[in-house]
Amino acid sequence: MAATATTLKGQPLDRPVLDSMLRRRMFYTPSFEIYGGVAGLYDYGPPGCALLTNIIDTWRKHFILEEDMLEVDCTALTPAEVLKTSGHVEKFADWMCKDPKNGDIIRADHFVEEILEARLKGDKEARGVKVEEKEEDPKKKKKKAKATEAVKLDDAVVQEYEEVLAKIDNYNGEELGQLIKKYELKNPATGAEPSQPVAFNLMFQTAIGPSSHAPGYLRPETAQGQFLNFAKLLEWNQQQMPFASASIGKSFRNEISPRAGIIRVREFLMAEIEHYVDPQGGKKHDRFHEVKDVELILLNRHTQLAGKTNVEKVSIGKAVADGTVDNETLGYFLARIHLFLEKIGIDQSKIRFRQHMANEAAHYAKDCWDAEMQTSYGWIECVGCADRSAYDLTVHAKKTGAPLMVRERLDKPISIEEWQIDLDKKKFGPHFKKDGKTVEAAIEALPQDKREALAQDLQSAGKITVDVEGVGNGTVEISKDLITIERRTRVENTREYTPNVIEPSFGLGRILYALLEHSYWTRASDGGDEARCVLSFPPTIAPTKILLVPLSSHESFKPLLRHMSLKLRGLGISSRIDDSSASIGKRYSRNDELGTPLGITVDFQSVKDKTFTLRDRDSTKQVRADEDKIIAAIKSLTDGTKVWADIEKELPIFEGQETDVAVR
Amino acid sequence: MAATATTLKGQPLDRPVLDSMLRRRMFYTPSFEIYGGVAGLYDYGPPGCALLTNIIDTWRKHFILEEDMLEVDCTALTPAEVLKTSGHVEKFADWMCKDPKNGDIIRADHFVEEILEARLKGDKEARGVKVEEKEEDPKKKKKKAKATEAVKLDDAVVQEYEEVLAKIDNYNGEELGQLIKKYELKNPATGAEPSQPVAFNLMFQTAIGPSSHAPGYLRPETAQGQFLNFAKLLEWNQQQMPFASASIGKSFRNEISPRAGIIRVREFLMAEIEHYVDPQGGKKHDRFHEVKDVELILLNRHTQLAGKTNVEKVSIGKAVADGTVDNETLGYFLARIHLFLEKIGIDQSKIRFRQHMANEAAHYAKDCWDAEMQTSYGWIECVGCADRSAYDLTVHAKKTGAPLMVRERLDKPISIEEWQIDLDKKKFGPHFKKDGKTVEAAIEALPQDKREALAQDLQSAGKITVDVEGVGNGTVEISKDLITIERRTRVENTREYTPNVIEPSFGLGRILYALLEHSYWTRASDGGDEARCVLSFPPTIAPTKILLVPLSSHESFKPLLRHMSLKLRGLGISSRIDDSSASIGKRYSRNDELGTPLGITVDFQSVKDKTFTLRDRDSTKQVRADEDKIIAAIKSLTDGTKVWADIEKELPIFEGQETDVAVR
Repeated sequence: MAATATTLKGQPLDRPVLDSMLRRRMFYTPSFEIYGGVAGLYDYGPPGCALLTNIIDTWRKHFILEEDMLEVDCTALTPAEVLKTSGHVEKFADWMCKDPKNGDIIRADHFVEEILEARLKGDKEARGVKVEEKEEDPKKKKKKAKATEAVKLDDAVVQEYEEVLAKIDNYNGEELGQLIKKYELKNPATGAEPSQPVAFNLMFQTAIGPSSHAPGYLRPETAQGQFLNFAKLLEWNQQQMPFASASIGKSFRNEISPRAGIIRVREFLMAEIEHYVDPQGGKKHDRFHEVKDVELILLNRHTQLAGKTNVEKVSIGKAVADGTVDNETLGYFLARIHLFLEKIGIDQSKIRFRQHMANEAAHYAKDCWDAEMQTSYGWIECVGCADRSAYDLTVHAKKTGAPLMVRERLDKPISIEEWQIDLDKKKFGPHFKKDGKTVEAAIEALPQDKREALAQDLQSAGKITVDVEGVGNGTVEISKDLITIERRTRVENTREYTPNVIEPSFGLGRILYALLEHSYWTRASDGGDEARCVLSFPPTIAPTKILLVPLSSHESFKPLLRHMSLKLRGLGISSRIDDSSASIGKRYSRNDELGTPLGITVDFQSVKDKTFTLRDRDSTKQVRADEDKIIAAIKSLTDGTKVWADIEKELPIFEGQETDVAVR
Repeated sequence: MAATATTLKGQPLDRPVLDSMLRRRMFYTPSFEIYGGVAGLYDYGPPGCALLTNIIDTWRKHFILEEDMLEVDCTALTPAEVLKTSGHVEKFADWMCKDPKNGDIIRADHFVEEILEARLKGDKEARGVKVEEKEEDPKKKKKKAKATEAVKLDDAVVQEYEEVLAKIDNYNGEELGQLIKKYELKNPATGAEPSQPVAFNLMFQTAIGPSSHAPGYLRPETAQGQFLNFAKLLEWNQQQMPFASASIGKSFRNEISPRAGIIRVREFLMAEIEHYVDPQGGKKHDRFHEVKDVELILLNRHTQLAGKTNVEKVSIGKAVADGTVDNETLGYFLARIHLFLEKIGIDQSKIRFRQHMANEAAHYAKDCWDAEMQTSYGWIECVGCADRSAYDLTVHAKKTGAPLMVRERLDKPISIEEWQIDLDKKKFGPHFKKDGKTVEAAIEALPQDKREALAQDLQSAGKITVDVEGVGNGTVEISKDLITIERRTRVENTREYTPNVIEPSFGLGRILYALLEHSYWTRASDGGDEARCVLSFPPTIAPTKILLVPLSSHESFKPLLRHMSLKLRGLGISSRIDDSSASIGKRYSRNDELGTPLGITVDFQSVKDKTFTLRDRDSTKQVRADEDKIIAAIKSLTDGTKVWADIEKELPIFEGQETDVAVR
């Protein structure tokens, strides 16, 4: 288990304090709060929106523009038939029970897990073993369990419980119900045994149009819309492979009882890439060499099975070479995901890539690696990178008859030597009468090795025996006047195949939340006031880049503020004026909480000589210079060409105003 | 009625040709098409997405950044109670009937309108009057009526029909049903009379969470989420008024039978601003002077009632001064909307602002002006600018008890001279016994003028008579030992009020569609090939800015293409390489249809001397120069500082390659 979550400066992270600050500053806020709120629904306020917009903008540049991906925007409303075909209607469900006393809805697997864990904990206490607090897992409905009862269990029972917990994700509803009965698991809130689990589909259902004959769902992922457009996108891309489509949009999952703040919500923004690749040739990627030295922390299946979590960094080049990561395309995207997370300011020491265990993969996924971020909720999945193989394109093509495949003209036609069968149709039909077609189909389906053997039979015995289900006693005899089997050469000019899909899928809200935790610290780490919080976003991602602060509400400051504000807007740098009556220190402190990296103070000196002070959020240091130099410094700091240390060397340090005192 | 829709160059616009081109180039495409599609749902493909992203980006800069609006992102899932309070559950509905024979769902008002119009048309034909084709109205389900029967009607019947049509928006379901019966209106498809109209709510319903006790809807507008956050946003804005919130997001309306392409869809992107303003003081706007000379075409209520549509341009300053537009804040936003539409490339001659008639305004709107764009569907509403007064904040505050209001500390306390009433509580209670509280409330509610009159009565008669509903015979007598009425002075230090809301609301999909029509023309206008279509987007809005075309697939071009591509990306200018095997002319032509404003050709000369040709989409003219000059030209053209005519003067014209020939 990982250590307790920490701030950017390594202090223990106090989540309630951070959460209250984030709500106060309106990064996010519970939706419909004046109506009592709805679990799992959150609104983003001004700084949250700006942060999200900047993350999206970076994402679009990093993925879509960099690789000429084809962006599409599909509807969230989806007819039921599409999601039946994709498997979501049947399989996108959790098991839920009801408490017969108070009507509480309970997620069955979480319930079994919680109670058994509590019993094991009680057993350890009874045995006098020190119990380490397990970090909170956001996947679980975590009722603050009442004080655990210290009850010693039989050794055999302990072992049984542990075995159940190890494969908790594998039980179906009936089995979960049996576990509840067998171990007499009761809801601690009521003492009652929950009802038999029933499947609860996690999709929101609705009806499209005025008649009730058109059931539909809100999409649980953006992927399906992309798959359905595959043929059009391939055409748009002038039939060139490989290529990727991408989509940024809301998806919806009707969680049974969401908690864990904005980590587990019912409506969320996703950014998904569907990269289509030829399954032949080992899924190479022609830009893999650009990323091969990127180092990642990889937690593969085998390591997890061995119960370990401490793993070394390894270059993606090495991981693909030794087979840890299956192929170059998957590896390429893992590295690109890592670079993206680094770019927006995610703490590099708090990222790992974890491979899904065989039993936890989604129904469509052949292999999947999650990029997990370490937070106060534990390691949370923020990006999934799945190999969906040809699953989706195949099922939709089969259902609709649409040609969701690639037809490739071969540079060199291929000569294929093979055993071909000719039937003498004139005699064959009359001979087998009504069974003719069935027998013919069985012959057509014969594999090459079988054909070779039959060719020998035909030569030696003058007849062959073929298995044909449903005709006679299941085999038919065919003599050589009806059939010829010969080895011949066939030339193929085109090749048809269904592409495989590598899917990097980003939960933008979760990434945003991890970024908030990873950027957060308090001035106590610098010996300052613990109540002074800071969010140290990179300037490119920060909601607002510059705070403009007049010393007071004096009229003479107004033209200067307006001038600087227009100048910055002309440069495309977002700024905000705070001319409220609070002290300068208070105003800066407010903007430290908003993550604004730079501040300009306009004072009486500014009015006299057009010089301004520029303040750095992280160090609270200030420099003073004329307008041109200050603007030049801001430009280089916000476009990332310089850091504050450079500016301190270039421009004179400014000291001795109340700003610093108030902030410390 | 307006003239037929035209292309950018004034030729008649052939919608089926444009529509087919837009689908082929994947600006948009019907959703779920391989499953047969769903009416009213469309996906955006790569150029549509890029166009939409650029429109959103411009919108955000023009409105949110320019005016420091507070952006919020609220959920689409909305609990039913919120939309009950807002009036949407009761009033956001259309009347629908069912055809008893084939089960067709019919929108009642459109049905009555269509049949009566068809009969009037038949009457005119029978009278030998030439019938002018009315332009198509996207609001209506327009079944291609069978050939109208030329049947003469009585003059009185004609007049009656015309009166019904004039107030068609005013009938409720029962009345529409009576009209259907009275005039024996039959569905032309079956000859049957449709069923009695029933209200059909246009919101998509679903259930939030696993229990069925939490009904919810998909929001029909983004506004409600913004209103519910009002108190938090005011706090975030440090209690300063006026201010605006803004939101960009999907909304949903379950149209009864949507047609008209992407104009009338069930899921659509909106951008909405809620500008909160003090209702006192005439709703002035302190930046109104910046826009007062902007000229708009305003079609007000009176002009519409007089049956006219031809109106002059008028400056918004004059329109507010003469009362055509109610106040400065509304006027300011009308002008800002106009400037935005101009910026993204909407044809200025095809915009008008139409005031809602009293009967068509939404249930919450006090006044509303629609920005309408002229298209082949007629004049379509793309932006609404409504004065919602204090409606929404008031109803939500009343329902929840949340203080959705502004408390303003007055600079100068106000002295209010008024008639105040004192009751002698000791005697008053015992005198009126159980009626005491009722009588007291009636007295408290007395208005100032009444109090003044009563003070005189009390002085002259020693007693007064007050109306008190439900006590005695409805009046009570109060003698002067129980009551005193005196003129006194009261001092107020704060003022409380519920702000009024001015709401500019943008349908981004409709704006995008209007922009497509307004940007479209064919080379036939220049004497070229009619099959060569062009979309002349402004460079800032165009999906891709530069097409990079190698003369052939020769290996020597590849490094140059890569070099130019990276250089342009570094400048933030989106480019795309087309190295397909089609002729240069074909490749340029494809990108004219995608609206790419500029093209660079890489040929053998480029390999030799690093010079490139730069092609202008609209004129198909080319210049040739070295890399630096070409890049400088591109920069100035895409940031809008120069136009092509400037470049033609600065750089040598390039002629005599097959490109031009192929394109013309």
